[in-house]
This record gives sequence, structure tokens and C-alpha cells, in this order.
Amino acid sequence: MKIYVIGIGLIGGSMGLDLKKTLNDIEIIGIDTNKIHLDDALSLGIIDRIGSLESITEADRVILSIPVKESMHLLPELLDKIHADALIWDVGSTKEQLCKLISSHPKRDQFLAAHPIAGTEFSGPQAAHKGLFQSKPQILCECNKTRPDLLLWAKQTFRQMGMYLRFMEAEEHDKHMAYVSHLSHISSFMLGKTVLEKEENENNIFDLAGSGFESTVRLAKSSPAMWTPIFEQNKENVIETLEAYIKNLENFKSLLANDDYEALFQEMKNTNQLTSILNGISKK
Amino acid sequence: MKIYVIGIGLIGGSMGLDLKKTLNDIEIIGIDTNKIHLDDALSLGIIDRIGSLESITEADRVILSIPVKESMHLLPELLDKIHADALIWDVGSTKEQLCKLISSHPKRDQFLAAHPIAGTEFSGPQAAHKGLFQSKPQILCECNKTRPDLLLWAKQTFRQMGMYLRFMEAEEHDKHMAYVSHLSHISSFMLGKTVLEKEENENNIFDLAGSGFESTVRLAKSSPAMWTPIFEQNKENVIETLEAYIKNLENFKSLLANDDYEALFQEMKNTNQLTSILNGISKK
Repeated sequence: MKIYVIGIGLIGGSMGLDLKKTLNDIEIIGIDTNKIHLDDALSLGIIDRIGSLESITEADRVILSIPVKESMHLLPELLDKIHADALIWDVGSTKEQLCKLISSHPKRDQFLAAHPIAGTEFSGPQAAHKGLFQSKPQILCECNKTRPDLLLWAKQTFRQMGMYLRFMEAEEHDKHMAYVSHLSHISSFMLGKTVLEKEENENNIFDLAGSGFESTVRLAKSSPAMWTPIFEQNKENVIETLEAYIKNLENFKSLLANDDYEALFQEMKNTNQLTSILNGISKK
Repeated sequence: MKIYVIGIGLIGGSMGLDLKKTLNDIEIIGIDTNKIHLDDALSLGIIDRIGSLESITEADRVILSIPVKESMHLLPELLDKIHADALIWDVGSTKEQLCKLISSHPKRDQFLAAHPIAGTEFSGPQAAHKGLFQSKPQILCECNKTRPDLLLWAKQTFRQMGMYLRFMEAEEHDKHMAYVSHLSHISSFMLGKTVLEKEENENNIFDLAGSGFESTVRLAKSSPAMWTPIFEQNKENVIETLEAYIKNLENFKSLLANDDYEALFQEMKNTNQLTSILNGISKK
């Protein structure tokens, strides 16, 4: 089985490594616009050889792990080219627009919209590693539009990689992701910016920041090239979450300005319930 | 040497444990309004016995590790009572108001304003552990107002505990902390609130959140009882940081609403420089 990985980064690279461990007699072929990433992926043993879009006709499986905006350009062309029993899945953080785009493509049923929740703030093939997907959720969208035999293969394979599967509509996926992922990234980037603006001439002050600050701005290390198109694709939902977030911050500020410390206390107390929810996640 | 720890929580408890390891012939005496915490501290070996404010006259050293607003009530009384060679230090997250309060106390020079940057989102004596302060900064404020022999002892002891010392004025301390610590906590609490409001009937969705969300809202597990008085004490600075933060979020929202993705990219790219700054911290 020939598996093409288009975009050999953290997700594509790690998926290649896990597939090698999971499946027999497969060949991983890498495509990337970044020549250094391709060479790294070869020397790290993530891919067996370098391929090209021209030879995609030979692919049995295609993993599309490039920024979501580029997937919008490439996916219809890939579907056109692949053979009748090939399956393409993407790993992007937004789903609605991509699914809409190909909804009436004659080979729609050879595509599966997937989103493994396994990113970190690191990127590139150097960041790829075996077991990244162990005990992580894989969200599959619009499964009823994928050909049953191909879907079955994908579900089995993802489960063999240690993932647990969740199913939802593309629109629903994007709404939830705006809250539980995209907003976190903006919050973190803007927190980092705010502190940098204030402290830029006093970098030494950062050693006073403690691990609290470090954890809160961890996501501000994320790749702008990856995140800009995610925010673009999910613009409406992200703006909605930002408005809700800003409203809550404004409210917190008013309570503080009005010395309403009882209400401030309650705001924080109510949010503490996240502890048990998040502990529930960690136990998974 | 008799060392009183008033407030046997994460910081007070851990400091007691480290002092036992560092100094010879000391006795750690605990005071806390929470009887369960006192019993826990005894059975965990953090304190040698339970004391009372009446017997504070016997104390050679007093660690004041209670919420900062309660320190405002207690510190003048403690200074009144201690003997002529005793030293009190606090461990609070704000310094300006406390230092002002006792600036003309006749025993001002037996107090040292200290802030170990070593908190976690956990609290109580169960969270206390040896080595918490290893390689952590200890900020000392207004050192010139502390009696030189007592200051020297404190500096030596903190260094023996593995801390590195930083010196600043109380006002400067509070300004910096508003940015690098207090704002992080509010950002995290309000992020948690925003997502909870949206997703409250769909707790199952949290398992889709991934480690990014978890890291960003980690601080939302923090103790409201501790943080409410910190925000109160540092009100003006915290409001200033909140305004700067909200302005940056509003700006991000506008760029997104206006489809200015080049500018969004740059915003994030500029903030990526935090990576090298924070890596510098981790290497310490």
C-alpha cells in the first residue's frame, strides 16, 4: 500500500511514523514545498522516498496535512487524480469550508474529513514522533459521505493507532473548536503581546514570570503560518468567541473598578469547576 | 531557633520543609485558621507543633504566608509583639500597600518584604513539598529598610534554599507582577468562563480540547480566596493591564473582521519572540 503524506510536519510526520508501526507492507511517500523538511523526513526515516503531485495516481491513501487554506486549493485536484479505491483524509483544524467545497465532487466519497486533536506548539518533521496520537481524540466529520469500505478501513486504522473516535457535523466541529482551541490561541498570543509591549526593554523581568505565565503563553509559540488560515476559515465563529471573551474581561474589569470583590470571588469560584472537568480529561 | 509559619499552605508549608533541611536546631511552629490544615501539616511533618498568636513573643523568625489582605491586618500587630531580634518576612504577591502600611512602624526594620515566585495552581499543606524553591526567584523589596544583620541572615538562608535573589522597589514589583502574573490569571479565569458558558451542557466536548486549552486555563484552577485580595491590592495596575490586553484583543478581532490576514500573521509572528525569551527562562 502506497501512502502519500502531503505536508511532512508534526502531524503528517507523526502519522506516517505510526502508520508504519501499525500496517504491514506500506510505503510512505512524502511531498512538501519545503525541501529541508523533505530531507529531514527522509533522514529521520519518516518517509521512504520523496514523491510528487504528478505521481499521486499511484497513491492508495493520501494524508493531507498542510495549512487548511492550501488544502482548499489542492483537495479538488487530488480527488480528480486519485484511483478509484484510494482514500484521502485531511487533518485540518477547520472543516466546514473544506467539506462545502467538495460536497458535489464526483469523488466526494473518497474523502474523509478528520481532525486529530494532538497538536503541540512545535512544528516541522523534527517535532514528529511515534505515539503522538495515543489516547487522543480523532474527530471525523460527515462520515456518511465517505464510502463505507474506505471509512471502515480508516476507523480501524485510527483505532489501531490508539485514537478514540468522535463524530460530528463539520459546522458543529468548527463552532466547538473556536471555543476550545482557537480562542485559547488568540488569548495566548495577545497575552504575550501585551506583556512584551510593556516589558520589551526589560527582558530580564521575564525571569520573574513564574511557570504560570509560561503555561498561559505556551500557545503563543505556535506557527502563524498554520494559524492565520485557521482563523480565516473559521472567521465568524472565532469573532463570536472573541466577543464573548472580551465581554467577560470587561465585566471582570468593571467588578474590580467598582470594588465588588464578592462578585470577583464568585466569578473565579464558578470557573474552578474546570478543575474537575480537566482532571476528568487527564484521567482518560 | 523558633520559626513560626502563619498560614500553612503551599508556600508556607514548603518553606517550612526547606528550612528544616537547611538550618540546624530549628523548631517549626504552625498557626492557621484552618484546623484541618494544621492537623495535616502536623501529620505530614511540616510543623513540629501548633502555636498561637499569643505565643508569638517567643518567635525568632515569622513567615507570614496568608492572603495579602489578612497580612495587612496582622502584620502591625505581629511587629508590636515580636522580640528585638526577631525577623518577619511575608511571601505575598503584592507589596506596595503592605510596605506603605508599616513604613513608620517602630519595628519596620524587623520586616522583610519577600515574594518567592514559586506558586502553582494548587494550595494547602498537601500541596507543600521539599525543593519547591530550588532555582526560583525570590524578590526582595525595600531591602534598605530591613536591619542589615537580619537582611544578611535572610539572604543567606534563601540562597541556601536554592533561590536566586532579585531586588526592587515595592511599587515597581507590583507593576511588573500585574503584567507577568496577575493578568495571566485573569486571562485564564475568563477564558475558562467563556468556554464553560458556551459548552456547559456539553461537557463531553471538553475531551476535544487538547492540551492547548488545558495549558491555557491551568491557572483557572487557582484559589479565589488567594487571588481576590491580590487583585484588590493591585487594583490600579491590574486594570491598566486589562485595558491593554482588551485593546489588543479588540485589535485582533478588527483585523480578522477586515480580512487583514497579513497583519494577523505579523501580530503572531512578533509574539513568537516569546519563544526564545521563555526558552531562556527554562534553561535557568
